[in-house]
Amino acid sequence: MGGTSATTSTTPGTPASDAFFTSLNPGALGISPGFEAAVELAGEFGFGAVDPDGRYLGEQPEAELSKVGERLESAGLRWGSGGVPVDLTGDAAKFAEQLSGLPAYAATLAAAGVERAGTWIRPMSDAVTYRRNFARHVERVGLVDEILSGAGIRFGLEYVGPKTFWSTELYPFVHTLAEARELLAAVGSSNVGLILDTFHWYTAGETADDLRGLTADQVVAVDLNDAPVGRERDEQIDGQRTLPGATGVIDLAGFVGALRDIGYAGPIKVEPFNAELRALPVRDVVAKTADSLSSVL
Amino acid sequence: MGGTSATTSTTPGTPASDAFFTSLNPGALGISPGFEAAVELAGEFGFGAVDPDGRYLGEQPEAELSKVGERLESAGLRWGSGGVPVDLTGDAAKFAEQLSGLPAYAATLAAAGVERAGTWIRPMSDAVTYRRNFARHVERVGLVDEILSGAGIRFGLEYVGPKTFWSTELYPFVHTLAEARELLAAVGSSNVGLILDTFHWYTAGETADDLRGLTADQVVAVDLNDAPVGRERDEQIDGQRTLPGATGVIDLAGFVGALRDIGYAGPIKVEPFNAELRALPVRDVVAKTADSLSSVL
Amino acid sequence: MGGTSATTSTTPGTPASDAFFTSLNPGALGISPGFEAAVELAGEFGFGAVDPDGRYLGEQPEAELSKVGERLESAGLRWGSGGVPVDLTGDAAKFAEQLSGLPAYAATLAAAGVERAGTWIRPMSDAVTYRRNFARHVERVGLVDEILSGAGIRFGLEYVGPKTFWSTELYPFVHTLAEARELLAAVGSSNVGLILDTFHWYTAGETADDLRGLTADQVVAVDLNDAPVGRERDEQIDGQRTLPGATGVIDLAGFVGALRDIGYAGPIKVEPFNAELRALPVRDVVAKTADSLSSVL
Amino acid sequence: MGGTSATTSTTPGTPASDAFFTSLNPGALGISPGFEAAVELAGEFGFGAVDPDGRYLGEQPEAELSKVGERLESAGLRWGSGGVPVDLTGDAAKFAEQLSGLPAYAATLAAAGVERAGTWIRPMSDAVTYRRNFARHVERVGLVDEILSGAGIRFGLEYVGPKTFWSTELYPFVHTLAEARELLAAVGSSNVGLILDTFHWYTAGETADDLRGLTADQVVAVDLNDAPVGRERDEQIDGQRTLPGATGVIDLAGFVGALRDIGYAGPIKVEPFNAELRALPVRDVVAKTADSLSSVL
Repeated sequence: MGGTSATTSTTPGTPASDAFFTSLNPGALGISPGFEAAVELAGEFGFGAVDPDGRYLGEQPEAELSKVGERLESAGLRWGSGGVPVDLTGDAAKFAEQLSGLPAYAATLAAAGVERAGTWIRPMSDAVTYRRNFARHVERVGLVDEILSGAGIRFGLEYVGPKTFWSTELYPFVHTLAEARELLAAVGSSNVGLILDTFHWYTAGETADDLRGLTADQVVAVDLNDAPVGRERDEQIDGQRTLPGATGVIDLAGFVGALRDIGYAGPIKVEPFNAELRALPVRDVVAKTADSLSSVL
Repeated sequence: MGGTSATTSTTPGTPASDAFFTSLNPGALGISPGFEAAVELAGEFGFGAVDPDGRYLGEQPEAELSKVGERLESAGLRWGSGGVPVDLTGDAAKFAEQLSGLPAYAATLAAAGVERAGTWIRPMSDAVTYRRNFARHVERVGLVDEILSGAGIRFGLEYVGPKTFWSTELYPFVHTLAEARELLAAVGSSNVGLILDTFHWYTAGETADDLRGLTADQVVAVDLNDAPVGRERDEQIDGQRTLPGATGVIDLAGFVGALRDIGYAGPIKVEPFNAELRALPVRDVVAKTADSLSSVL
Repeated sequence: MGGTSATTSTTPGTPASDAFFTSLNPGALGISPGFEAAVELAGEFGFGAVDPDGRYLGEQPEAELSKVGERLESAGLRWGSGGVPVDLTGDAAKFAEQLSGLPAYAATLAAAGVERAGTWIRPMSDAVTYRRNFARHVERVGLVDEILSGAGIRFGLEYVGPKTFWSTELYPFVHTLAEARELLAAVGSSNVGLILDTFHWYTAGETADDLRGLTADQVVAVDLNDAPVGRERDEQIDGQRTLPGATGVIDLAGFVGALRDIGYAGPIKVEPFNAELRALPVRDVVAKTADSLSSVL
Repeated sequence: MGGTSATTSTTPGTPASDAFFTSLNPGALGISPGFEAAVELAGEFGFGAVDPDGRYLGEQPEAELSKVGERLESAGLRWGSGGVPVDLTGDAAKFAEQLSGLPAYAATLAAAGVERAGTWIRPMSDAVTYRRNFARHVERVGLVDEILSGAGIRFGLEYVGPKTFWSTELYPFVHTLAEARELLAAVGSSNVGLILDTFHWYTAGETADDLRGLTADQVVAVDLNDAPVGRERDEQIDGQRTLPGATGVIDLAGFVGALRDIGYAGPIKVEPFNAELRALPVRDVVAKTADSLSSVL
């Protein structure tokens, strides 16, 4: 079983018919077990995929990369979604350097069989207006996408919803699904899609119907998280979340139902940014994460 | 007398009060005399400046660059406007490479005392829509400008007017002053300005009043050319021009009058793309060019 | 059978499973039989619908409008797509007047059961730049759509492809599917969709795959036409077309196949702008049109 | 002395050489003395102009309008800037109605000799994204401007700066000078300019140099206000201001100096939105306003 075909029957709580699959992302959980242990933990706790660690892959000899993919496959797993080491808002010299390095990075990911990578959209700026920032993102996303798509890797963009974040600088920027869709339309590449995160969907005040306006191809990766109780929607803080289903603040059933309706067929991970969780032993973190996914999928 | 202060009294035909000055650009005339000879020819035929040759400057040892500027100054000349070795429509890998190399190029120009550099806007595309291309140019111009302005060099953009050019691909792009001004406004940097060329101004159907809507700071460099007789405006071809005043097809007096009205204070060169002229001996080319400038300034 | 449910078995040449249906538009054929005769001709020659004539409906007493819809239904027909009496490029006073009159017009159409209406995008301007024209169209389309959608009527926009048209003024505008989709995305209303015409699709150099990038909901109405032989694609003239299948210049099979693939579920009409056809007796015009549709559906 | 020529020597505190002039706007001060009393108060307290009251002018017989202008002129006054009765964010039916009524309103103002009118930009929306709202404003401003410019009236737009306002809805919109300039550039009409207000300039964190980037023609009207002490810049509230110079929170000297530097030649009024002031007798309100202007001009 490889990156392009998968049985999802072992994914926690996922009916066999679901086209999406869970993915273990150690970094997003605040743990660093290493690739081998991550594969074993993913298998033991029923994940369908492991998110690729670009730094780890970059350190492997080129000839070993296909073996990394094979190791994953032999464990009955596939790849989730990796990162993109380009700061979309960096200064010109930094952007030129990062873009220059991207073809090699993309080749590494592709050699290991990775098919998805993404980054997020900083939802504000003190330096550039909304429109100037939009043109910046259209072109920089387009440049990154040209390289990723040339390597056979889909490019996912995550919008970031909390008002406690976007309202902190002079020029708020893309922080809703509607705006992210405008960005996709302006870029004009079918290889670019969205990374949806329940925390952003909730803080942006969006509904399951908003998601149903998307096609399956427009979603590259998904994050499931819940939000702490006792805070108004506009008071939620990006770095303070909970495991899916932990509080019920976010309508995860509605969100997941909409993903099923549109036929989403990619990875689902958890990114709880939760200090309490990070403090646990690695196995417990993974076990709790798997349980939380089972409870909502 | 250096790049930032100049008497313009020796400029051919230019009243002492003019803030602009003529510049000899051998390449634009189809000749290659080399730097030393160019300086001598410019002095002999009364030019106020010489356009920098980025390739030549790049070949000089770093420590010699200030001496090149001093050589120019000692001849009573200043710099005109140089080129920018970045293709604004190149593919992602090429653009990343060219942008990565730009800081060194800008440092070279700055070390020699150059204060202006520019490029042109390709007025059509078969691949990207007007709006996608506009976002591309806003951001790429912004990236180039960030590096040039950091080196103290103003960045000039030339729009290209002939319909025989912009109408040849599926998506016509910026080919008028009005559109070029929209691009400047969208980039939002006061360091970016226009390179005005009478040939484009004429083929775009523009008037002296259109130029009067500009401020002096919005113009970085100027080209004076005339157009062949016997062709409708929409039939003029970009690579087939004449020396200023040779035919009277273009209203050069109106154009230059508007530059005076707004107080334009930069270089004026000739770029005739004329096969007959290129066939002459180098001295004759420069002499004829100087005469043509004298006749219209 | 009414506007929202239909058997399509009588549509010429259409398999029963097709979701789209043919519509008779007398005006587009250059004939004026009147509503009653149009209904009879549509029934006799196997059309599935008749396009509404807004002027005719506007002349009916309000109380009679529902009867007009019932008359259509009793003949086993439904409505195709009507016009929108607003010039998207008119001057401010004219636009204000036409927009002010639109609610009454929309109410008339709605009372008769009409569910689709549209207009076209003028693909060039001598007065306003591409970007200014785009903002104009985004907002004017949005204003018209707000009124139409309030009346339950979908709003269709037709892009116009011939280069012999868009290249005739200083600022070419939207003339391809890619640009029309950008316009739809910028308007941001799911009630607005496209009117596709094979003549524009062909002259814009588009493929069946371009159409497959659309969802069924993004298409409001469709025109099938062919183009005369002996002309290059870029020499085709908007007002000189032929009946579908008459020449084989346009790949109608590919076009219709793509509509089937995306599940298009609206009207298909013919708009041949053909002098020879217009010269025939009314019955012959309708018969030939029905035959031409049968040959390609 | 009329609307187009003026001595400004009687303006409170204004050196004779200033091109701008003070204008009394009773409504902005919370008083309603009526036209005749306003003219007398303006004359008595040394104002250079009175802002026109569109409603009052609309109630005058058409033949009397020129006399209203003459009355003003005979008192040594000119017109300041009037309002524009069009809601730039109203729904389609309302906008159509208001735009339809604008030609008559503009004719009324013009008949009385009024040369400037303006409105403000709502700096946020819960319904439409930044980009959709921008297209809306570009076209609606363009439509209003087409009618106003046709009547010889300049159109001024005021951006609104307080974060306590723009951050209250999901989609913040234009709330800075940089964004307002983007809007002007996108509209593309030299008849449209800015209404600058110190309160917005201060709350947007702008500097005198930002103003120096404007040309005199880009400013249609100016408001001078100060802000209450004891509040952070981001905590200032739009409806709670003070008379110019009352607190020194806003750098009025820097603001006025920049206006002088660019050669601003239009009206300056006060709009304090101050409850304490409104509670005073009418004469006292005007006297205090005149004193406050004298102290800062």
